[in-house]
Amino acid sequence: MVAAGIDVGGTKCLGVAVDAAGRVMAECRRPTPRGEAVIDALAGVAEDLEAEAGPLPALGVGVPGLVTLEGVLRASPNIPDVAELDVAGRLGARLEMPLVVGNDATWAVLAEWRIGAGRGHDDVVMVTLGTGIGGGVVAGGRLVVGANGFTGEFGHMVVDPNGPPCPCGRRGCWERYASGSGLAQLARIAAVGGRLRRVVEMAGGDAALVRGEHVQAAAREEDEAALAVVDEFARWVAIGLVNLTNALDPAMFVLGGGLAEGADLYLDPIERWFVSLLYSPQLRPHPALAFAELGERAGAIGAALAAAERTRR
Amino acid sequence: MVAAGIDVGGTKCLGVAVDAAGRVMAECRRPTPRGEAVIDALAGVAEDLEAEAGPLPALGVGVPGLVTLEGVLRASPNIPDVAELDVAGRLGARLEMPLVVGNDATWAVLAEWRIGAGRGHDDVVMVTLGTGIGGGVVAGGRLVVGANGFTGEFGHMVVDPNGPPCPCGRRGCWERYASGSGLAQLARIAAVGGRLRRVVEMAGGDAALVRGEHVQAAAREEDEAALAVVDEFARWVAIGLVNLTNALDPAMFVLGGGLAEGADLYLDPIERWFVSLLYSPQLRPHPALAFAELGERAGAIGAALAAAERTRR
Repeated sequence: MVAAGIDVGGTKCLGVAVDAAGRVMAECRRPTPRGEAVIDALAGVAEDLEAEAGPLPALGVGVPGLVTLEGVLRASPNIPDVAELDVAGRLGARLEMPLVVGNDATWAVLAEWRIGAGRGHDDVVMVTLGTGIGGGVVAGGRLVVGANGFTGEFGHMVVDPNGPPCPCGRRGCWERYASGSGLAQLARIAAVGGRLRRVVEMAGGDAALVRGEHVQAAAREEDEAALAVVDEFARWVAIGLVNLTNALDPAMFVLGGGLAEGADLYLDPIERWFVSLLYSPQLRPHPALAFAELGERAGAIGAALAAAERTRR
Repeated sequence: MVAAGIDVGGTKCLGVAVDAAGRVMAECRRPTPRGEAVIDALAGVAEDLEAEAGPLPALGVGVPGLVTLEGVLRASPNIPDVAELDVAGRLGARLEMPLVVGNDATWAVLAEWRIGAGRGHDDVVMVTLGTGIGGGVVAGGRLVVGANGFTGEFGHMVVDPNGPPCPCGRRGCWERYASGSGLAQLARIAAVGGRLRRVVEMAGGDAALVRGEHVQAAAREEDEAALAVVDEFARWVAIGLVNLTNALDPAMFVLGGGLAEGADLYLDPIERWFVSLLYSPQLRPHPALAFAELGERAGAIGAALAAAERTRR
């Protein structure tokens, strides 16, 4: 084992110990508590990993939200009652090994780039389509973290300034359309308009209860109204990917998050819209679109790889 | 002198010879011809520079448009009758010195970062607000060129998918709003609505002839309707800057292009809108906004610096 990594999710803290090739040698999980108790949970997972795999040469931790370069979690949409939590300081005081703390999506793109769907490319953008949208950037063969550690907050790129309000306080953020909750919202609007009979049926007859999985299930039955919602959703996904391509010219997008499970349904329409929205599509190679390979372990593996790389320097 | 650089603009090819600190030791210009004759003009400017400053140890060339990593100009909005022009190959066959060919805005950000408004920062995004919008990215202390050399095509980020058509074939591209032509368009819409009496007067009484400079001039007289157009324009500029901040978390934006001349008019409203549109503005340092310092020479100086850096390796 060269290092361990822990990914803090909304429901669980997932820890892994990896070898030099990023292969998982041991895995442990504990529930994510509210507030500062998350530090206890992290120390607990580290102990569990040590008990299973031996002393940890280095530990990486990935947390969702705005994490400073010093490892302070300023705020997190996924962990209740946490603000300005000095994860690096508090956890470092309790553990002996070298510690690296960063954003979960940043570590996920590191893992997918080193050993997952993005391997072999120098310019990779990962976009995580979950409840919201996060992600990370590799450019010129290096992980981009930004001036404050805040790269990859793609979900709050404004793609429609007069669009629906976002809980963040602004309007028309990309994640209002292209995330899991965005898909559900597009579906509910269509359902209220009366267009989505089969989908509403699957949601128990109540349009207000329609969720993304109902759209997916109906679309798999080739229900035309559901496929139209999938197509509209794919257009919004493509708008953000096109904007990132115009800005960053990646060789590849790695798509992760819950929606990656419906990959077969989304890939074709996203690619079709992408080509029709890209600037000068006939004059440039298009970035490959692939779905993440490391699943829920990407963040933890990436945190471990980051800890191993930082320690080697 | 350590290297020379030539920037190909819509009207002229501007060449400079620089010392190791990027200071301009000599400067020459020739008109930009149509089509492939641009190669002759480039060779001519190189000769002029040699005659003035002595043998050129290395030459960098910046061209507007999509330039591949091999130095092929695939197409250019600013040079008529050019397509798939192998600038590196054709010019390299005529010159003795090492040659680097790339995008003009990429070289401009390199120059502003090394010796201009962005010096001292590791994460700098330059945005050039001219007829269209271009730019470049420095991340983690390195120039980002992208998988194909096409980073920084910011003008075609889609910020309003149902917005007005763009000559590129899509709708609601950022440069439809936030460029020089975008400002004029916002003004003409307001003028047709009857709101812009003073501005239309300055344009000779014809709303169709209103240009950005008329808005600027009226705004400087504190004309309220003109100031409202400036404010609307600033909002659109801020939308794109916010999107780039969410994606890349730069320490600083360097704004260049023709609109940089009205810097005093735009800086305050852009900053105000930026704060109101940024995700979690209270939780993060805001990137500094500054206007470019190297003016029309940025591209040529950056091309020279790129040639010098590539030769040193």
